[in-house]
Amino acid sequence: MSAGRLIGVGLGPGDPELLTVKAVKAIKSAPVVAFFAKAGHRGNAREIADCWLTREQKEVPLYYPMTTETRFDTPVYVETLRVFYEESCAVLAAHLEAGRDIALLAEGDPLFYGSFMHIYVRLREKFESTIIPGVPGMAGCWGAAETPMTWGDDVLVVLPATLSEDDIVARLAHCDAAVIMKLGANLPKARKAVTRAGRVAQALYVERGTMSGEKILKLAEKTDDAAPYFSMILIPGHGRRP
Amino acid sequence: MSAGRLIGVGLGPGDPELLTVKAVKAIKSAPVVAFFAKAGHRGNAREIADCWLTREQKEVPLYYPMTTETRFDTPVYVETLRVFYEESCAVLAAHLEAGRDIALLAEGDPLFYGSFMHIYVRLREKFESTIIPGVPGMAGCWGAAETPMTWGDDVLVVLPATLSEDDIVARLAHCDAAVIMKLGANLPKARKAVTRAGRVAQALYVERGTMSGEKILKLAEKTDDAAPYFSMILIPGHGRRP
Repeated sequence: MSAGRLIGVGLGPGDPELLTVKAVKAIKSAPVVAFFAKAGHRGNAREIADCWLTREQKEVPLYYPMTTETRFDTPVYVETLRVFYEESCAVLAAHLEAGRDIALLAEGDPLFYGSFMHIYVRLREKFESTIIPGVPGMAGCWGAAETPMTWGDDVLVVLPATLSEDDIVARLAHCDAAVIMKLGANLPKARKAVTRAGRVAQALYVERGTMSGEKILKLAEKTDDAAPYFSMILIPGHGRRP
Repeated sequence: MSAGRLIGVGLGPGDPELLTVKAVKAIKSAPVVAFFAKAGHRGNAREIADCWLTREQKEVPLYYPMTTETRFDTPVYVETLRVFYEESCAVLAAHLEAGRDIALLAEGDPLFYGSFMHIYVRLREKFESTIIPGVPGMAGCWGAAETPMTWGDDVLVVLPATLSEDDIVARLAHCDAAVIMKLGANLPKARKAVTRAGRVAQALYVERGTMSGEKILKLAEKTDDAAPYFSMILIPGHGRRP
């Protein structure tokens, strides 16, 4: 019996119709569908894939060990996550060794941030694996906002809002277009940085792009500090326009 | 009679199965399918969409006025392109005014570089329009190369190789991960810049990612200077990895 294959399936930005044809085929044909979720929640990935799943499939939820936002740079956080990834790999490896293919769901694109890669780099040495790219969350957001992002020779920078305010300001000075991701509790800091960089007039705030509850407004009009994980700031470029 | 709708359809990186479910539906149901192509060629967009088209649809090719790479910054180039976009809009507007929806094909994602946006910003004031985001070419390339691109707090920069060598070197100093697009004749310059920036050891060269004729090699091993338009350099990030 040959081992199963690990398939990294990009789910796209949230709208279930923004999965690729290849992703839908992979989800429908895999005997095992695995996904990350907060403990006690169904999880956003499972939600997006819902209409493509059949009852015959074995579902394997991988529950994150922490449910609140902890500082990323503490040794406890890193160790807890490391153990979580190791244990998740053991669960998945058992299915692969039994010859079952696994579709491991990844929001957006599998190789652009996100948890999938931590499993992928551990399992791909031992098992056959495939990547099915997806529409990144940011493309869903600028599409929902009907905002052309990069033209001609524009340079795009993608920044996590976890960086320091000064760092964000400095990096915004070296680009035409920018995406600031992972807002959450970092929204006030990111908004200050965008303002200091002189880019607030063009900036948009997008929350849950392509999903139910989608909100799109000018960053200048986003005056409160409540931002979910699925929110980002977009600063469009202005390159050549014949 | 109400006017038709302009639908910007992201085709993804090249593999026809990497269109989204929504894109396939839009192409199949639109009475008019328009796409850009070099004069005398079927064009890459038309090629990617081929298996999703039916014979009932009216095809509207929009042929670029120049077939060789001209300098982007000459007044003649800009004016020639401007006239081309204006004329293309007139052709499309006639279909929209007659009440026919148009699926205008865009390689990759419609709002991330590319010609679609020049039509979109001109027609969207007069006609209803929708964007269907797509998997960007770069996500197809890093997926094909099985290369995780951004981790944790990594900053990604997307650069067109049309920038000057010094400019590319400077911008590579301000990022963890980078994508250098639009290689073509700019490959030798881009390779020199990546080398000067001290990033050549990690860099990959990807040609026609997810398409037939796909080539993936280390940039250090790409010693000749022949690079098609559909090629890019990828420099992966190295962020937090618990």
